[in-house]
Amino acid sequence: MQQYFVNSRAENPVTITDKDTVKHMFNVMRLTEGDEVVLVFNDHIKRLAKVLDSAAHSFEIIEALSDNVELPVQVTIASGFPKGDKLEFVAQKVTELGAAALWAFPADWSVVKWDGKKLAKRQEKLDKIVLGAAEQSKRNLVPEVTLIEKKADFLKKLADFDKIFIAYEESAKEGEQAVLVRELAQAEAGQNLLFIFGPEGGISPEEVEVFEAAGALKVGLGPRIMRTETAPLYALSAVSYAFELAK
Amino acid sequence: MQQYFVNSRAENPVTITDKDTVKHMFNVMRLTEGDEVVLVFNDHIKRLAKVLDSAAHSFEIIEALSDNVELPVQVTIASGFPKGDKLEFVAQKVTELGAAALWAFPADWSVVKWDGKKLAKRQEKLDKIVLGAAEQSKRNLVPEVTLIEKKADFLKKLADFDKIFIAYEESAKEGEQAVLVRELAQAEAGQNLLFIFGPEGGISPEEVEVFEAAGALKVGLGPRIMRTETAPLYALSAVSYAFELAK
Repeated sequence: MQQYFVNSRAENPVTITDKDTVKHMFNVMRLTEGDEVVLVFNDHIKRLAKVLDSAAHSFEIIEALSDNVELPVQVTIASGFPKGDKLEFVAQKVTELGAAALWAFPADWSVVKWDGKKLAKRQEKLDKIVLGAAEQSKRNLVPEVTLIEKKADFLKKLADFDKIFIAYEESAKEGEQAVLVRELAQAEAGQNLLFIFGPEGGISPEEVEVFEAAGALKVGLGPRIMRTETAPLYALSAVSYAFELAK
Repeated sequence: MQQYFVNSRAENPVTITDKDTVKHMFNVMRLTEGDEVVLVFNDHIKRLAKVLDSAAHSFEIIEALSDNVELPVQVTIASGFPKGDKLEFVAQKVTELGAAALWAFPADWSVVKWDGKKLAKRQEKLDKIVLGAAEQSKRNLVPEVTLIEKKADFLKKLADFDKIFIAYEESAKEGEQAVLVRELAQAEAGQNLLFIFGPEGGISPEEVEVFEAAGALKVGLGPRIMRTETAPLYALSAVSYAFELAK
C-alpha cells in the first residue's frame, strides 16, 4: 500500500498540506473518497488512513500499525563531499538500507567545493531523494540529510555518538577485519553509531588522527577496495546482518 | 599500483595483445620501460611485472604476489532482467563486493524483453564494466557475466550450486530473518552459493515453487523493502561480513 510521510504531529482527521504529497496522492495516484494509504507522522508510527474528502485533501485515521522496520541502532553515515552526483546515489541507497541520518562534510581530500548557495540547492535535491526512497522502502522515518559547510562543525558533532567507525582503506589492506564485529557485538539497541567515509581520495592521515582523538576506531570492511559510494552500503548491510538477522 | 587482467596463461615475458588494455597502459597511463604494474592471468594470481618494451607492449614478470581478496565462497548473483541500466549498476557494484559471477534471466515479471541482438550488445557493455570494476577493486578474477535468453537454461544450471537462496520480499515482510544466518554458518569455504533476485515486480509464486523444487531456500534480507538493484549488494555484504569479518 502507498505510504506517505506527514511532517506534523499525528491528528485525526488530518489535512495534507505539502504540495508534492498532495500532487502524488490526488494527481498521480488519483485517490478518491474511501481509498486507503499509510500515513507516517513525526512519531514514526505507521497509521492506516482513508480519504475523507479528496478536494480538501483530508484523511481519517483508521488505526495505528505495529509495523516497524527501523534498525535497532541509529546509524549515521558521514561522507566526505564526493564528486558528481554520488551523494544522491548514496542518499537513496542508505535510505533503503536503514540509515537514520546522512551527513556530508568537506574532507581534506574532497575535490569539490560546495559553498552556501550550492549546498542549499543540493540539500533540496537530497531531501526529495531521501523522502521518495523512505516511502518506497516503507521506513518509519525519513533519514535526516545534513550538509556540513565547515569541518569544525562536523568535529563538534562527534561527541554525540556511542561508537564512531572510520572506514579506512589501509585497515582493509592490512587485513584488519575483527574490530567491526567486536564492536557491533557490544553495541546495544538504541545506541548511536557513526560511520565516516572519505571522498574518492580517502581520509587523510590528519583526519584519522582527529577522529581517533574523538574516540573513533578504524575498521576494515573486507579485503576488496570499494568505491566511496559503495562502502556505506556495505556498512549498513553489515549492521543489519549483525542486528536484525544474526541476533 | 595499476592492475590489469590478462586473458591468457601466465608466461614470462608476456606481450599484451588486448587493444583496450594496451591503450590504457601506454596511452592513458603512459607506461615506459621499467614501470611496474600488477598483472593477473587466468590462474587468478597477481604478479608484479615491469615494462620491457613499451613499443612491443611486453612485460617481464618479477614475482608472484600472495595478495588474494576473493571471498572464501563463490557467490553467483542471478537477477531477473531489470529495467533500464540497472543491470549495469548491479554489475559494477557486485564486482566491487566480491561476486564470482553475475547472471541475468528473463523472469516472469521482467518487463523488458532482450533478444539475441540486444543481449550481445548488452553483454559487451557489461563485460567492460565488470573488467573495469575488477581492476579498480583489485580482484583476483573478473566475474563472469552470463545473460540467459531462456529461463529453462537458467533452471538447468541450478544443479551446480551447493546452496541457493531466493531473496523474497514476502519473507522479509513476514519477519523471516534466521535462514540466511543459519545457512551461511553451515557453508564451507570453496562452496558455490547462488542468490536469486527478481526484477522490479519481484519473483512470481510459480518461480518460487520451481526454485524451491531445485533446493532453493527463501531468505529475508532485513525488514526494509529494497529495490531490485540494492538487494544483491546487501547479500554480498552479508556474505563478506559472515565469512571475512566474523569468521
